[in-house]
Amino acid sequence: MNEIKVIAFDADDTLWVNEPYFRESEMEFCNLLKNGMSIEEVTEELLATEIGNIPLYGYGTKAFILSMIETSLKITKGNISSEKIEAILTLGKEQINKPIELIDGVVDVLESLQGKYRLIVATKGDLLDQERKLEKSGLLKYFHHIEVMSDKKEDDYKKLIQHLDIDSKEFLMVGNSLKSDIIPVLNLGGKTVHVPFHTTWVHEMVSEEEQLSSGINKIENIRELLHLL
Amino acid sequence: MNEIKVIAFDADDTLWVNEPYFRESEMEFCNLLKNGMSIEEVTEELLATEIGNIPLYGYGTKAFILSMIETSLKITKGNISSEKIEAILTLGKEQINKPIELIDGVVDVLESLQGKYRLIVATKGDLLDQERKLEKSGLLKYFHHIEVMSDKKEDDYKKLIQHLDIDSKEFLMVGNSLKSDIIPVLNLGGKTVHVPFHTTWVHEMVSEEEQLSSGINKIENIRELLHLL
Repeated sequence: MNEIKVIAFDADDTLWVNEPYFRESEMEFCNLLKNGMSIEEVTEELLATEIGNIPLYGYGTKAFILSMIETSLKITKGNISSEKIEAILTLGKEQINKPIELIDGVVDVLESLQGKYRLIVATKGDLLDQERKLEKSGLLKYFHHIEVMSDKKEDDYKKLIQHLDIDSKEFLMVGNSLKSDIIPVLNLGGKTVHVPFHTTWVHEMVSEEEQLSSGINKIENIRELLHLL
Repeated sequence: MNEIKVIAFDADDTLWVNEPYFRESEMEFCNLLKNGMSIEEVTEELLATEIGNIPLYGYGTKAFILSMIETSLKITKGNISSEKIEAILTLGKEQINKPIELIDGVVDVLESLQGKYRLIVATKGDLLDQERKLEKSGLLKYFHHIEVMSDKKEDDYKKLIQHLDIDSKEFLMVGNSLKSDIIPVLNLGGKTVHVPFHTTWVHEMVSEEEQLSSGINKIENIRELLHLL
């Protein structure tokens, strides 16, 4: 870990709580529809729509709202009132306005690393969402800038590292998603620290095999990052 | 113009045609509703909704689709079929998939500037939209990277210039919007070249007074940029 120049932190579920809010909105969405389908069936349809829309809409709350509307039309076969469409729009706006709940240890870690490394946020959420959250979080002062990536695949990290004008071995990614934060960076010769979060979006899950495949630095609380550096 | 290190190009309506596609979707949206309101009244309502939603949704096509749905519920007082909501979603997806039409002269200019300056794209559209357009446009090879900004106000440019690790006088912004590309950069001591486009979104318009306020470099075709440098 000696050569590290830039430490990139994933945002959602690494710096602050995010996924549980999506799960809450999903539950409200299910309750809103109450069309005889089970919650499992509704969320499965929603997930299929979301994944189908990623190439067009990408990630983030706006994509989520549009996919909820599309799913509601699909599973009710168009038999849905405009009040419910409006309720979905409201649900989305409420989600955008959720308060920020920092994850335990984040401030201590950033306080301690500030000035020693160039710290950035590397996230694939919606730019405006992420800037708003960073502003609300009070963490803005610790970061050189935010990198919002349209996706977090190997090619996206290659572009990011090139843009940072550093070598991949000088790059450390810290995040909760093996699929998005860890595996692609390792494949490029970068360094990673995995801090799992208790809730993971199905689309972000990877097989146990992949999880065990390499000697991934895994910590339970972000504070432990300081011992690794 | 001697000191310039980074030339930032706005994307929509500077590199490629964009605003006319939004206007086309607006017309289709109006035709879809056919609720006795004039096209002017519908577009006025839509604009009000869009502007009201900017703090929450920002810019780009996803924000536009969500605002169209919200407007449709509002102006029909909820009396809208789910087929029409679906048609709005389709309209939005079609807009995302529109082909790229480059603006005359762009390739020649980029070809000529490549290697002499660090060229970037600085846009406030949706990140995924803009990456997709850049990919489709064939212009990707000319640019160091894309900067997607959540807004293009003075503070946003300040952050951008800081992030580029240059002085504001080493920064040149080229774009079609006086409000978003020119005035905030001039206020920061940066350099600008204004290339007007025939269609401007109402929200981007500035008064004639502001237009005349300073000796803004204005060119008719982006090719003329080469004579200014």
